[in-house]
Amino acid sequence: MSKSLPSRADNYSEWYNELVKRADLAENSAVRGCMIIKPYGYSIWEKMQRALDDMFKETGHTNAYFPLFIPKSFLSKEASHVEGFAKECAVVTHYRLKNDPNGGGVIVDPEAKLEEELIVRPTSETVIWSTYKNWIQSYRDLPLLINQWANVVRWEMRTRLFLRTAEFLWQEGHTAHATKQEAIAETEQMLEVYADFAENFMAMPVVKGIKTANERFAGADETYCIEALMQDGKALQAGTSHFLGQNFAKAFDVKFLSKENQLDYVWGTSWGVSTRLMGALIMAHSDDQGLVLPPKLAPIQVVIVPIYKGEDQLNAIIEKVNPLAKALRKSGVSVKFDTSDNQSPGFKFAEYELKGVPVRLAIGNRDMENGTIELARRDTREKTSMPFDGIEQVVLDTLEDIQSKIYAKALAFRQEKTHVVNTWDEFTAKLDEGGFISAHWDGSSETEEKIKELTKATIRCIPLDAKEEAGKCILTGNPSSKRVLFARAY
Amino acid sequence: MSKSLPSRADNYSEWYNELVKRADLAENSAVRGCMIIKPYGYSIWEKMQRALDDMFKETGHTNAYFPLFIPKSFLSKEASHVEGFAKECAVVTHYRLKNDPNGGGVIVDPEAKLEEELIVRPTSETVIWSTYKNWIQSYRDLPLLINQWANVVRWEMRTRLFLRTAEFLWQEGHTAHATKQEAIAETEQMLEVYADFAENFMAMPVVKGIKTANERFAGADETYCIEALMQDGKALQAGTSHFLGQNFAKAFDVKFLSKENQLDYVWGTSWGVSTRLMGALIMAHSDDQGLVLPPKLAPIQVVIVPIYKGEDQLNAIIEKVNPLAKALRKSGVSVKFDTSDNQSPGFKFAEYELKGVPVRLAIGNRDMENGTIELARRDTREKTSMPFDGIEQVVLDTLEDIQSKIYAKALAFRQEKTHVVNTWDEFTAKLDEGGFISAHWDGSSETEEKIKELTKATIRCIPLDAKEEAGKCILTGNPSSKRVLFARAY
Repeated sequence: MSKSLPSRADNYSEWYNELVKRADLAENSAVRGCMIIKPYGYSIWEKMQRALDDMFKETGHTNAYFPLFIPKSFLSKEASHVEGFAKECAVVTHYRLKNDPNGGGVIVDPEAKLEEELIVRPTSETVIWSTYKNWIQSYRDLPLLINQWANVVRWEMRTRLFLRTAEFLWQEGHTAHATKQEAIAETEQMLEVYADFAENFMAMPVVKGIKTANERFAGADETYCIEALMQDGKALQAGTSHFLGQNFAKAFDVKFLSKENQLDYVWGTSWGVSTRLMGALIMAHSDDQGLVLPPKLAPIQVVIVPIYKGEDQLNAIIEKVNPLAKALRKSGVSVKFDTSDNQSPGFKFAEYELKGVPVRLAIGNRDMENGTIELARRDTREKTSMPFDGIEQVVLDTLEDIQSKIYAKALAFRQEKTHVVNTWDEFTAKLDEGGFISAHWDGSSETEEKIKELTKATIRCIPLDAKEEAGKCILTGNPSSKRVLFARAY
Repeated sequence: MSKSLPSRADNYSEWYNELVKRADLAENSAVRGCMIIKPYGYSIWEKMQRALDDMFKETGHTNAYFPLFIPKSFLSKEASHVEGFAKECAVVTHYRLKNDPNGGGVIVDPEAKLEEELIVRPTSETVIWSTYKNWIQSYRDLPLLINQWANVVRWEMRTRLFLRTAEFLWQEGHTAHATKQEAIAETEQMLEVYADFAENFMAMPVVKGIKTANERFAGADETYCIEALMQDGKALQAGTSHFLGQNFAKAFDVKFLSKENQLDYVWGTSWGVSTRLMGALIMAHSDDQGLVLPPKLAPIQVVIVPIYKGEDQLNAIIEKVNPLAKALRKSGVSVKFDTSDNQSPGFKFAEYELKGVPVRLAIGNRDMENGTIELARRDTREKTSMPFDGIEQVVLDTLEDIQSKIYAKALAFRQEKTHVVNTWDEFTAKLDEGGFISAHWDGSSETEEKIKELTKATIRCIPLDAKEEAGKCILTGNPSSKRVLFARAY
C-alpha cells in the first residue's frame, strides 16, 4: 500500500497487472502461464460460480465430471475441431518417475511410456461425445443437459492473469437434442443466461451476437457470443454458446431412435464461461484507486472501520456497531467489522478501496457523540455523514444503488464509445479512439482478414439486433445487408 | 432394471461394481483408470462438497486455486515426500501437436519438448509451499488457512470406481502456523471436522486415530485418520489430516519473523478427503436392492409415485399431491413427484430403490377414497398406509429417523465386527471373519510388515482413545502399552 497504482491513463496494461496483484486476486506461479488464484480473487469466482450454477440448474441442467485426459486419437475425429484446437496442448507421454541413478533427484522413467499419448483437455467435446454414444439410444434419453466445472489447459505463449492463461477454470455445458430447432433454442437460451449474468451480477453491459465463420468455434455450425467493452476501448469476449449441428454426433456416431422409430444423429450444443470473466469484471468498473466490485459479487459488501483512541472508545463503538453488523448480516449482507489494531484507519480505508468493498462505514468519537456515522460508497467515492439510526436501510439501498449505477455508467461508456461509421477513413480514425465500431462488411472472410491485417480490428460479432439495412462494405465497397461490430480485442 | 443386482453375500465386489453403474453414479471412461462421474453420482458429491465447504469456512478457512502442474524438480525438494509420492505420476513432456505429415491425424511435435517436465499434481504440498514462501514474512501473516477443491492424478495400476482411480476429485487443505502447538491443534481440529461430517452427514461411524510410521503421509511428522468399516468387513480410510512439522517449510525455505523478532520456520498441516468418500458411502449402507442414502446427502429425499388409470384419476391425484410437494419443498426437502407415464409404478419403485431415495410415497385411487397415502422407507423397506392429513410432518420425522437409524445400524455392525484378541491364533481366525481387530503390537515397523505379509492385514490406526494397557504383541510377544486396530483394507 506504500505505492499507489499506475493510473489507467498512463499505462492501462500496467494498471491492470498491478491491480490484480495488489488486490490479492491472482499471481503468476512457478509454472509458466499457470496462475494462482488467491483467496480474495477466488471468493469472487465462487460467487460467480454459485450464481451461474443456480441459473444452469433453473434451466434444467445437472453437473457431471469427465476425465482430465483425452486420448490423442479422439482429437482427430472431428476434422475442423482438430484444425482449430489440437495444436497448443499439454501432452502426457509417461506415467512414472524414478530416482535418478546419478543422484540428481527424479527423472522420467523411459520404460513408462504410454502407448497412446494423452492430451490435457483444452475443451471436452470429444471425450463427452464419445461417452454420449453410450448414454443415448432413444428420444427418451433426450434432451441430455449436462454441465461440468473444470480446469482446462491451452498452451499459450503470451499469458496475462485471468485474461489468457495456460490453465484456467471454467464451466462447459454439453447438451444433446432430438431436433435442430431444440438445439438452436438451447444455444440461444444459454446465451441469454450469460447475458443476464453479465448484466445483472457483473453489472457489465454486453452485446449479444453471432461470430463470423472465421471466429467460429472449431467444430460448431454457429457460435453465439456476448461481447463487452473495457475501459481502454478494447472489446472482450465474455462467453460463447455453440450450436454444434450434428458434427460431433457424426464424428462419434451418436444416433437415437426417434418417436417415429427413425434412427438419426443427435443435435448438439456447448457453451462456456471461464475465469476470464474475472479479468472482464476488473476492467469494466475499476479505477485508479483499485477495484470497484458490483455488490452482488463482492466478498465483503460492507466494511465498518472504527476510529478511536484507547480501549474505552473502541469498546463503546463495538457495543454500538455490533447490533448493526448483526442486523445487516441477517439481511444477507456480508459485513466485515475491522477492529484490528495494527493498522491506521487511513491505511484500512485505502486497503478496502483497493479491494473494491462497495460500502464503507466509519465511526469515531464525534460520531458517537452526535449519533452519526460516515458512509462512503466505493463507486463515486462520496462520503456522507448520516444519522446512525436508520443506517441499516440506507446501506441496503446504497448497495442496490451501486449495483445499478455502475451498470448504468458502463452502459453510458459503451454507448459513447460505439461509433457508427460509413467510410474507411472514419473507420481507421475511430478505431484509434477505441470502442466498438458499427460498420458494413461484405460478408467475405477475405475482407475480414484484410481488415484485421491492416488495423488489428476483428469482427466481434454480428449483433442479434442488427437491423436489415443496405450499405457498402467499408473496405471493398461491396454490398452489405447489415452492420457488424468491429473492435480491437483482448 | 431387468436384471437384479448381484447379492452382497454372493459376490460383494461385483455387487459394488454393478451398483455404481446401475444407480448411475459413475462409469469407466475411454482413458484407463479415469472415471466419469455421472449426474446422479455428482449430485451426491456436490452435497458432500457443500457440507464440507461450509464446515471449512466456519473454522476460518478460505478457498484458493493452485496450478495443476508441478515442475519435476519441486518433487525432489522434500526428501521423504519424493520417496513416497513421486513415482506413479502423469508426466507432461510436450506442449504441442502437429498434423501427421503422413496423414494419420495428429502427432506430438518433437520440437515442442519442455525444458523441464511437468508433473500432473498427485497432491499440492510442493507447489503450495513454494508459493507460501512469498506470502509469509511475519507472524501477522499467520495462520494461513487455505483449502483447494481440485482434481489430482496418481497413476494406479488397478483401479475401481471411486475407491481407486487415476484421476480423482478432492479437497486439500494447506495451513501454516507460527507454533507447533497451533499446527497440531489445526491437524486435530480438521480430523474432528472429518469425523463430524462422516458421522452426521454420511451416517458412517468412524474411528479416529493416528497412523503408524509405515502408513504415514510422505513428508508428515504425524498422520491422523478416520477409519470406517464396510459391510464386507474390510476397513476404508475415509480422510487424513497431516501434521507436517517444519518439513515443507524447510524444503521451501518458508520462514517468518515472530512477535519476538526471531526468524523461524513455519509449521504446517495438510488434510484431505476425496471422491473415495462416495465409495465409502455406497458400501456403508446399501443393500441387495440398491443404494441406501442418508437423507442429508440424498439428491432426491422424497419421491411421490401416483398409481392411476386414465387422465382423470391422475389429475385428481396431482391436485391432491401438489400442495404436499410444495409444503415439503418449503421445509427444505427435495421432492420428486414422478408423473411420467412411460413406466409402471412397479418399475418406478424398483428404480428409486436402486437409487436410494430415502422416502417413497405412493398414492392410488383407493387412497384417494380413503384419505390415505402409502409411505415406504428405503432403509427398512417397510411400507405403511397412513392418513394423508398430517403426512408432511410424518415425512419430516421419517427423514430424521432414517438418518439416525442407518447410523445406529452401521455402528452396531462395527461394534459386532470389532474383535479384541490376545493370541496369534485368535488374530488369524477373526481376521477371516472380517472386521476390526484390536490387538497388541510391539511398535516396530518390522513386526507390522511381517503381519501384513502373513495376513494382508494392516494397522489401520492407533485409536486416539486407546487406553494404556500392558500387553504382549500378538506376533512377537514383545511388550506393548496399548492396543491398535488391525484390518484388511481397501
